[in-house]
Amino acid sequence: MSKYIIVGGVAGGATAAARLRRLDEGAEIVLVERGREISFANCGLPYYVGGTIPERDELLLMTPERFHNLFNVDVRIQSEVIHVDTKQKIVTIKAGEKEYAENYDALVLSHGAKPLRPPIPGIDHPHIVTLRNVPDADAMRQLAQRYAKGKAVVVGGGFIGVEAAENLRERGMDVTLVEAVPHILAPFDNDMVVLAEKELRQNGVNLLLGRGVQEFVSVNDDELEVHLADGTALPANLVVLAIGVRPDTAFLSDSGIRIGERGHILVNEYMQTSAEGVYAVGDAVMTFDHQTGKEAALALAGPANRQARLAADNIAGRKRQYKGVVGSSILKVFGLTAASTGKNERALEREGLVYGKDYRYTLTYPTSHVTYYPGAEVFALKMIFSLQDGKVLGAQAIGKSGVDKCIDTVAAVLQFGGTVYDLIDIELSYAPPFGAAKAPLNMAGYYADNILNGLANPLRPAELGQVIEQGAMVIDLRSPAMYSEGHIDGAVNIPAEQLRRNLDKLDKQRTILLACKTGLNGYFMERMLRQKGFKARNLMGGCAYLANFKDL
Amino acid sequence: MSKYIIVGGVAGGATAAARLRRLDEGAEIVLVERGREISFANCGLPYYVGGTIPERDELLLMTPERFHNLFNVDVRIQSEVIHVDTKQKIVTIKAGEKEYAENYDALVLSHGAKPLRPPIPGIDHPHIVTLRNVPDADAMRQLAQRYAKGKAVVVGGGFIGVEAAENLRERGMDVTLVEAVPHILAPFDNDMVVLAEKELRQNGVNLLLGRGVQEFVSVNDDELEVHLADGTALPANLVVLAIGVRPDTAFLSDSGIRIGERGHILVNEYMQTSAEGVYAVGDAVMTFDHQTGKEAALALAGPANRQARLAADNIAGRKRQYKGVVGSSILKVFGLTAASTGKNERALEREGLVYGKDYRYTLTYPTSHVTYYPGAEVFALKMIFSLQDGKVLGAQAIGKSGVDKCIDTVAAVLQFGGTVYDLIDIELSYAPPFGAAKAPLNMAGYYADNILNGLANPLRPAELGQVIEQGAMVIDLRSPAMYSEGHIDGAVNIPAEQLRRNLDKLDKQRTILLACKTGLNGYFMERMLRQKGFKARNLMGGCAYLANFKDL
Repeated sequence: MSKYIIVGGVAGGATAAARLRRLDEGAEIVLVERGREISFANCGLPYYVGGTIPERDELLLMTPERFHNLFNVDVRIQSEVIHVDTKQKIVTIKAGEKEYAENYDALVLSHGAKPLRPPIPGIDHPHIVTLRNVPDADAMRQLAQRYAKGKAVVVGGGFIGVEAAENLRERGMDVTLVEAVPHILAPFDNDMVVLAEKELRQNGVNLLLGRGVQEFVSVNDDELEVHLADGTALPANLVVLAIGVRPDTAFLSDSGIRIGERGHILVNEYMQTSAEGVYAVGDAVMTFDHQTGKEAALALAGPANRQARLAADNIAGRKRQYKGVVGSSILKVFGLTAASTGKNERALEREGLVYGKDYRYTLTYPTSHVTYYPGAEVFALKMIFSLQDGKVLGAQAIGKSGVDKCIDTVAAVLQFGGTVYDLIDIELSYAPPFGAAKAPLNMAGYYADNILNGLANPLRPAELGQVIEQGAMVIDLRSPAMYSEGHIDGAVNIPAEQLRRNLDKLDKQRTILLACKTGLNGYFMERMLRQKGFKARNLMGGCAYLANFKDL
Repeated sequence: MSKYIIVGGVAGGATAAARLRRLDEGAEIVLVERGREISFANCGLPYYVGGTIPERDELLLMTPERFHNLFNVDVRIQSEVIHVDTKQKIVTIKAGEKEYAENYDALVLSHGAKPLRPPIPGIDHPHIVTLRNVPDADAMRQLAQRYAKGKAVVVGGGFIGVEAAENLRERGMDVTLVEAVPHILAPFDNDMVVLAEKELRQNGVNLLLGRGVQEFVSVNDDELEVHLADGTALPANLVVLAIGVRPDTAFLSDSGIRIGERGHILVNEYMQTSAEGVYAVGDAVMTFDHQTGKEAALALAGPANRQARLAADNIAGRKRQYKGVVGSSILKVFGLTAASTGKNERALEREGLVYGKDYRYTLTYPTSHVTYYPGAEVFALKMIFSLQDGKVLGAQAIGKSGVDKCIDTVAAVLQFGGTVYDLIDIELSYAPPFGAAKAPLNMAGYYADNILNGLANPLRPAELGQVIEQGAMVIDLRSPAMYSEGHIDGAVNIPAEQLRRNLDKLDKQRTILLACKTGLNGYFMERMLRQKGFKARNLMGGCAYLANFKDL
């Protein structure tokens, strides 16, 4: 009879234990969890704080008792593995004052990562909280309710930070979000994330970007001040620290299990650590990038569950290889949905790839379904592809609807290492309430095909100023009504439909920069002008892109 | 200078013309359209009839004038190509009384298919209409408004028929839908489509299945009767014929262009017909199935547009191969969404494939997002896979939300010939408002993996009666409360959590049939029981499946 010990009873741990039971009814399975809850709704915590999830019980997907009854797993809550002896295959478990040893045939480390709490002066104030587990959420919810008319400062603009900011606003608090780098939500490029930032501001979140925290100063029992490096002092009744997580691997320091530079447990593609019989999954592991094969860590629930099932399979002798992390994520930002998969430009630049040499992208503004059917909503879609082989490298989308469908489809394409030509060929389902015959992803594929084959050479919005400075003539292709509502300085208005009969107004010596509504008519006119000998460029995303930056 | 003639100005035709212009600014391009409108919103017609799309203008995406101005295409409406001389490369165009010839270097046939109007007695009554173009929709809308308190009979339960029935209900009409075969919506298997049929009935559509029309009998100017083969007489003020379409290829009969048995234009993977310089796209062509490579025709807007761009590319010397049709479709049925991609069982059976030998499927009832976040809605998901290599063969989903995302992701998987193991690996975006860490498709992949590897052997609902007859003991694993609301005749209630301590109540000699809520707990208990030496089967889809058939 084999004996399996699982460390950590949330997401990965619970999955591994249940899968092991299904594969090996005769085994002894011990699940060791530090907290009182197992398998709780980790990702739901911010929404419990905000009240969207009203009842605490809804977070508790599985009780230790029920888990035991269903799977015959020996669940030991409020128990912590404090030492691992990989030679003897023995763990030391601490429960209250008691310490005891358990041997194992296989050990699964699935204990997660803990929120960073750097040694900033004053960080121990009791109103400075983090959000990892149900007691954290209880504490934050109580403070949010007590200070519903008070002030909150969220430090860190990652997923948890943004979700916390939104949910504290839902409670009625006056919320400031402080982010040290120039933009929030790292999986999104600057040109996309502005939409989410605008949405936060329009919903009353005071967003301070590129601003670091220097210290926390206690004012009284109810209040503290967050002092920023630039001298700003932000009063707060509640401070949420959401600046990232760190693998919780101190207890493994003398185990011989190989740990990476940033504290992650190193595993191979079978989720095996360097120690025989020891597997690790979830937020604490360093795995690899599906696209590049390079080391990658991704603290998300989906990969944790996938890795856990796979580790259980391998323990039970069903050899299965992990395919690496793609990095798909999604987030509600008040009325918007922001989703991404694969690499953004920032990640590509870290890999040393260069825009225009190694990769390019399309930026389009499709609608969730055809515009003639009521309720269509525009979203922004950025799709990045390789100039070498046309491979899709990543995609980001932000809007009200249609976003998750689009990004999940790209996630599938990334899993297969698909190209922009594959985006063209995918036969997506279409009826007027649900999409378009030329679906947003098909169109992105067409666009990329045109770029790869020299038919289109759209101008990145970031290059706009430079091209104008170099003497480009800007033609606004929209209707006079739209033009009159606002346009690029110096732009001449010639609606697309009238351009063919106004070619005498264009100068063959100057670059003709075309700006239409979203970039489509601009492309049509770019084709026409270039074949007629003009130096035409089309502004990617057209005026829809420029509008993103209004009121910022 | 090349001269291109495009026959048909909707979807495919307009796309081909515009793409040709972008590739060849110098060409002469003539677009010949029989009707008054080009590029109209074909798929929106039923919703214009019902009033969801209130204004006629919204259907007209592009006017001939605007198309000419943007693309310098010579648009000739109310003109019909009546003869093609492929040797001389000349077409004969009829416009009103005038007939004239035009030569071409390349010809694109994109004239579509026309609704079937078989020679049923009485079919010429003026209130028996079909829906192909804007004038058809005008006529149907007028009748629906005039007889808003009257009776409509829709003949044919395909996409158009169901959309017509729904939209005539929206107008207030008393609607009967008559379908000759036992179920509507052929892309869906019987076990799925019952959900759509129930939705139609619950919204007041009188659904007559397996009932053929024998004749139409005129009563007076306002009324006729639809006589069915079984003797039923249905009074009607309006009859919609929606029994399918036929390629409109009579004018090609002496052209030498090869035509298939059912009247489709035969094309190769470059969308070339048998005649040099003649291409064909859209509803009138016989192309091939992406998965099997066999001949396939699919009259949908997405493929038409894709084929048209590709034909234009090939004409302009950019050689591109069509990858074949997958058969993705989606439909609104009142409050439900029904979507499918790839093959259903019916299609596989036509190919000679056998359940249990060549293919199996999973039937699951996931929610649109995690249940602890408000607003989660259950949908039914059927995923069919090959027993030989685990390839995904097709998927169908029906529910309120989450359906289109799921099916589009499978469509991407089908494009790559992916397997159920790929479904496991796809890293889909997850946050509580949008999905689940174990996404519906991941779970379907896991389930199929278990079936392929002998860990699960779920029972199809269709086999239920037989297994019970052979003496199976049925265990209802749900809570006593759910059990008391209704259960399989003779089922014993042992909640899943209590089964492990009630094994003495089970008989090792009998098949133990497990029925839980949706099939998940049943699978857990199947694993346990089988490893303990019981003959356990799990009812696929659990009681959720059975509930579909209630009140039918």
